[in-house]
Amino acid sequence: LTQSHPANIDFNAQHSPMGAFMSFTCGHFGSPGGIGIEIGKPASQNVFIGLKTGDRKSLAPLKCLPFFKHVPEIAPVSTAFTGEQQIATKPQARRIESYSSEQIRRSYNWATDTWETPDFKFTIFSPFGPMPQPDTDSKGARESLLPAVIATLEIDNTKGKETKTAIFAIDFVEQGARIIGEGKHIGFAWKRKMGVLGKIESDNDSPAAIIPVQRWSVPDALADVNPVHALGTFGGLAVEVPAGSKQTLVLSIGVYLDGIVTTGLPGKYFYTQFYSSLDDVLTTALSRSPELRAESAKLDADLKNSTVSPDQQFLIAHSTRSYYGSTQLLDIEGRPFWVVNEGEYCMMNTLDLSVDHVFWELKQNPWVISNLLDSFSQRYSYTDQVKSTDGKIRDGGISFSHDMGVNNNFSPKGISSYELPHLPGCFSFMTQEQLCNWILMAGCYVAFTRDTKWLKDNASLISSIADSFRARADSRGLMTFDSALCEEGQEITTYDSLDESLGQARANTYIAAKCWASWLALEMLARVGKFDIGKNLADEIAKLLTTCPVDDTIPAVLEKENPGYHSRILPVIESLVYPAYWLDCLKTWENPSDLRQLFQNALKGPFIDVLKKHTIKLLTDPKSGNLFPDGGIKLSSTSNNSWMSKIAIFQYVAREVLHLEKSDPSIAKIFQKADDAHVKWQTDGSSYWACCDQIISGKAIGSRYYPRIITTALWLDEKRQS
Amino acid sequence: LTQSHPANIDFNAQHSPMGAFMSFTCGHFGSPGGIGIEIGKPASQNVFIGLKTGDRKSLAPLKCLPFFKHVPEIAPVSTAFTGEQQIATKPQARRIESYSSEQIRRSYNWATDTWETPDFKFTIFSPFGPMPQPDTDSKGARESLLPAVIATLEIDNTKGKETKTAIFAIDFVEQGARIIGEGKHIGFAWKRKMGVLGKIESDNDSPAAIIPVQRWSVPDALADVNPVHALGTFGGLAVEVPAGSKQTLVLSIGVYLDGIVTTGLPGKYFYTQFYSSLDDVLTTALSRSPELRAESAKLDADLKNSTVSPDQQFLIAHSTRSYYGSTQLLDIEGRPFWVVNEGEYCMMNTLDLSVDHVFWELKQNPWVISNLLDSFSQRYSYTDQVKSTDGKIRDGGISFSHDMGVNNNFSPKGISSYELPHLPGCFSFMTQEQLCNWILMAGCYVAFTRDTKWLKDNASLISSIADSFRARADSRGLMTFDSALCEEGQEITTYDSLDESLGQARANTYIAAKCWASWLALEMLARVGKFDIGKNLADEIAKLLTTCPVDDTIPAVLEKENPGYHSRILPVIESLVYPAYWLDCLKTWENPSDLRQLFQNALKGPFIDVLKKHTIKLLTDPKSGNLFPDGGIKLSSTSNNSWMSKIAIFQYVAREVLHLEKSDPSIAKIFQKADDAHVKWQTDGSSYWACCDQIISGKAIGSRYYPRIITTALWLDEKRQS
Repeated sequence: LTQSHPANIDFNAQHSPMGAFMSFTCGHFGSPGGIGIEIGKPASQNVFIGLKTGDRKSLAPLKCLPFFKHVPEIAPVSTAFTGEQQIATKPQARRIESYSSEQIRRSYNWATDTWETPDFKFTIFSPFGPMPQPDTDSKGARESLLPAVIATLEIDNTKGKETKTAIFAIDFVEQGARIIGEGKHIGFAWKRKMGVLGKIESDNDSPAAIIPVQRWSVPDALADVNPVHALGTFGGLAVEVPAGSKQTLVLSIGVYLDGIVTTGLPGKYFYTQFYSSLDDVLTTALSRSPELRAESAKLDADLKNSTVSPDQQFLIAHSTRSYYGSTQLLDIEGRPFWVVNEGEYCMMNTLDLSVDHVFWELKQNPWVISNLLDSFSQRYSYTDQVKSTDGKIRDGGISFSHDMGVNNNFSPKGISSYELPHLPGCFSFMTQEQLCNWILMAGCYVAFTRDTKWLKDNASLISSIADSFRARADSRGLMTFDSALCEEGQEITTYDSLDESLGQARANTYIAAKCWASWLALEMLARVGKFDIGKNLADEIAKLLTTCPVDDTIPAVLEKENPGYHSRILPVIESLVYPAYWLDCLKTWENPSDLRQLFQNALKGPFIDVLKKHTIKLLTDPKSGNLFPDGGIKLSSTSNNSWMSKIAIFQYVAREVLHLEKSDPSIAKIFQKADDAHVKWQTDGSSYWACCDQIISGKAIGSRYYPRIITTALWLDEKRQS
Repeated sequence: LTQSHPANIDFNAQHSPMGAFMSFTCGHFGSPGGIGIEIGKPASQNVFIGLKTGDRKSLAPLKCLPFFKHVPEIAPVSTAFTGEQQIATKPQARRIESYSSEQIRRSYNWATDTWETPDFKFTIFSPFGPMPQPDTDSKGARESLLPAVIATLEIDNTKGKETKTAIFAIDFVEQGARIIGEGKHIGFAWKRKMGVLGKIESDNDSPAAIIPVQRWSVPDALADVNPVHALGTFGGLAVEVPAGSKQTLVLSIGVYLDGIVTTGLPGKYFYTQFYSSLDDVLTTALSRSPELRAESAKLDADLKNSTVSPDQQFLIAHSTRSYYGSTQLLDIEGRPFWVVNEGEYCMMNTLDLSVDHVFWELKQNPWVISNLLDSFSQRYSYTDQVKSTDGKIRDGGISFSHDMGVNNNFSPKGISSYELPHLPGCFSFMTQEQLCNWILMAGCYVAFTRDTKWLKDNASLISSIADSFRARADSRGLMTFDSALCEEGQEITTYDSLDESLGQARANTYIAAKCWASWLALEMLARVGKFDIGKNLADEIAKLLTTCPVDDTIPAVLEKENPGYHSRILPVIESLVYPAYWLDCLKTWENPSDLRQLFQNALKGPFIDVLKKHTIKLLTDPKSGNLFPDGGIKLSSTSNNSWMSKIAIFQYVAREVLHLEKSDPSIAKIFQKADDAHVKWQTDGSSYWACCDQIISGKAIGSRYYPRIITTALWLDEKRQS
């Protein structure tokens, strides 16, 4: 076996279809996983993928991939039935062993995850791609919304002298397993909700039969006179592979949740419009498996052939999986409603995540962005008052809720599940930042799609957004007035668990730069839509940020008494991604000249020079405190809490917009070392939790099982100018 | 506080509506419980029912009933959100304490379970009664199928000097809690499936407001500036009770599972025909709470005023709850389909349980028996071959599957989830006993209802059942030929985990007596239906059992080489319950004379004398081994495994049919002592598992959370003749 990349293969990955809020998760040694639906964490099913020498009744030990937790009590489940009677078992048949990591090679690509042992090869295929708008392309939507992934278990016994017996089994946590299928398609399911269907591909004309297995203990059942007992908690499929042949067990692993699954708004899974049942899903997936495997291979090749490094490829592949694992396309009263759940927290469409997903989503399926923008404006917007510095309350303006609810429970209109009054930090309101997020997404949407119809429909809203920006800012454009919804608390940013450097919104330079980009978005939208937005504060903000540096770096918070005044943050450059993105979009426009000018001007001059100087200093000055000891990037000099999704945007801007690798050759090395550290944050620091965003000193602490790191896919757009 | 009965109050009870396969379970100290749906065990929710001195922000400790497991990690759930930030908490507010058992009085009645502390009184109301046939009495069915129970939390602060704050909260296991309701009706729910709705009853014109609470830690949330956060895992309702007033929080605790919930057959809950949502259920239950509480009080009084002893009352009350917790009325293609799930095993309509439920079910709602009989005959019957003693296979006949499936998964036609070939014991076929069970139920149904239309429709089936009996028996009527479905195994009895004394069906005297009663049923049905059943073997069996005793007792198995030949079993008298029951039913018939004669003859003469002598000897001879050291009844002399449901029938027959207490005064004392032991089996031996059937030396080992002990309700029919 050759070396795996990454070196540490002992980590969970989410294998997910699109829009089903489902993952088949495995990879972390000694942990259960399996099929999880609507949960922000791995499921708790022991997964047995293994092989033994001999036919199914052989007493050889069953050797499995380490995707289960040894539970000494597995066998005695049956004692509740058998009481004093002892069921005679052959102790040898009880043996179950795990392959050690030295015996496994893992190949982790964009849409395949392959585990190779000396005895077999197990691959999970999770292709992804555009998800057509269901109301305009129902065939394409049906295909893309298939709530299943494919796996193959290949046993090459062509050189063997003995039969080998392989098994794929899942031990469900609650009772409810059943055997399904007939003829050549045999599988197992848990009630009506999740299941696996298998078929055999053989190298000869005698494909092996699939032997269904269901009892309490996998090795016992495999060797038992009755391999199936409907009372058993696990379901499995076994194959006896004769010496001299190669057999591949092809599996579809899918889910089906029928009926309304949400509260607040009546949402069904959109896939239920296209598939009638779990059986339908599994059968369709199995029949489409050649095509789904080919699509996966194509995606793997796309990533392999891209210009990004192997470390970066890993981060992109890892984040793509966790992104899709959190996605959920609902049908609300017949119309599609797009939801990305917030990883382990399961908040729905957290807007400060949506804005980071926008680049990926526009590339894949731009309609989901207007869908999101409309859901926010129609249901999850509100108008607030703000707290003046003189203690008075005055008019604020429109903004948007942090999210639309949590755990499938939609919040009431204008209310998020997250935001609370009276707080100085985590769980306070994000009024200013969410206002930025909506308008930045709208800017991206219009720049990418040129959907002027949508823009016209939203002109008055966009004007009122400009008013709302001004109501929160001082004359320099700086966010100065907290929403009165905070009561005696204060607004926070998306970095909600960070210290004052990024936790506080007011006078924050990260927020200031985001407001600057928002004004550019407003300007673009107003020009394209030909409506008025009143005074634009972009220049004032740029001027303020240009003149505020201390020792060539920008304070995190522009309040001299605030501890954040001494913090230094890298994300102050994040917002440059927007004008750069819009500029790129303009290439396909017919008459973009004045907008091109707008953004080209925005991306040069003293403000940009200051940001560049700030960033280079923070990256290269060992005293700055913006690198971790392992070389990973530390977003704030005063906190050990860092967000991978934001690092990815930061790196993209640093390379692609500020051309820092060109300005300072040491930066390429710093980034390379950082990439290496960031891979380890995931594989070592977040090994159980799949892809994780929030990392404290290399360890996954929060924002785990998270979609947002899909921002790493921005790297694929880098032109690598030198 | 006065003394509770039973003395040990530290045991779980299922509080269940009818037909919803749902329980609100609590009572076992230090264990989670709460609302369980479609599971054969207590749910895993911490339940907090408690009170503190002062208003909700007071820092006094919160003192709760011990219905939760102290989880030191409760507070840090939030660290996944707050990362490095420390949320300031007042350590005093974290304190949560439990009442000790000395501080609690529990009053456990037929339909109320009351927990009284020095500070409050908490009562759960679970009324039950006839469940009308939905197609003929839709209003009655709607009322009886309401999937909710009622609870009250009474805080009498009329003599207090300070405000007191009470709370009822449930910490759900998975994320998904939400606050529901408005105005005076406030509650909380978990997604769309389960929830609680509250209202206040006050002793004055100022009812307290209900304060919704939802966060991660109950005591913290109660005192927090924001008692509700939609991200919280628990939901709760708090009430501030001012000094000088009494406030009662009235709660409806209900569930709602929408859509098809089964596989194999498409079953929905029948209650979904009557209620549109969880909100509808909870609101209806709350509005009906006065009536439901009154019904419960009436049931309590009925049991209290009955002739049975306090120990027996306890067993009846306990078993009634677990029986209803396992019931499930489905709507399959518009028609009702009755299911009793088999406790912890969740097998559906296990026929050897159904036959024991028949007395209770006929009294409550006779239509479910024809529903069951028809489900078995139409879908869960089969025709087998039998194994001749000469090793040949010959024709057997019709019989019925052990069950209809498991865990909401209906088995294919004619197949049970339980039975397997090749086995000598547990999980083998119960062909002979299930054949008895169906015809005994049919006999009870016709005797009770005089439904001659049903009988006519089933005449040909009943004739073939007689053929099937003969095909399995030798010329003495003794079951001699095992079903060929067993392959090299052998048939077993409902005592599937017992030794040969009751585990083996062939030549078993318990089965023989059951066949004898079955022939009486066949005779009755043939006479009433005026059809032919061929030769009746009742007399042959009676003769055999009359002549087989050794030392005045009947061997368990009539095979001299079999170890069971030396076992002595009490259930050999069980089948006398049937002719006695039928005789009782005949009282309402117009022309029952020949049938009355049939059963009166059956219940006297040498056979009955032998059974009587057998039983008296086993109960009174210290060497017989049919009593446990604690005085509990041991069904088999050679096994420590005993079944409470069967003991109950045995005791009924011993007292009411054989009049043993009259024949031998010591037997009344033996039974009284046994009742006391049987109570302890439940309260001590099965404290976590609510009502349990299978007891090994006083401990609940299997058949836990079980419906079958409802046979104890037979005791209520005893005439206590002296």
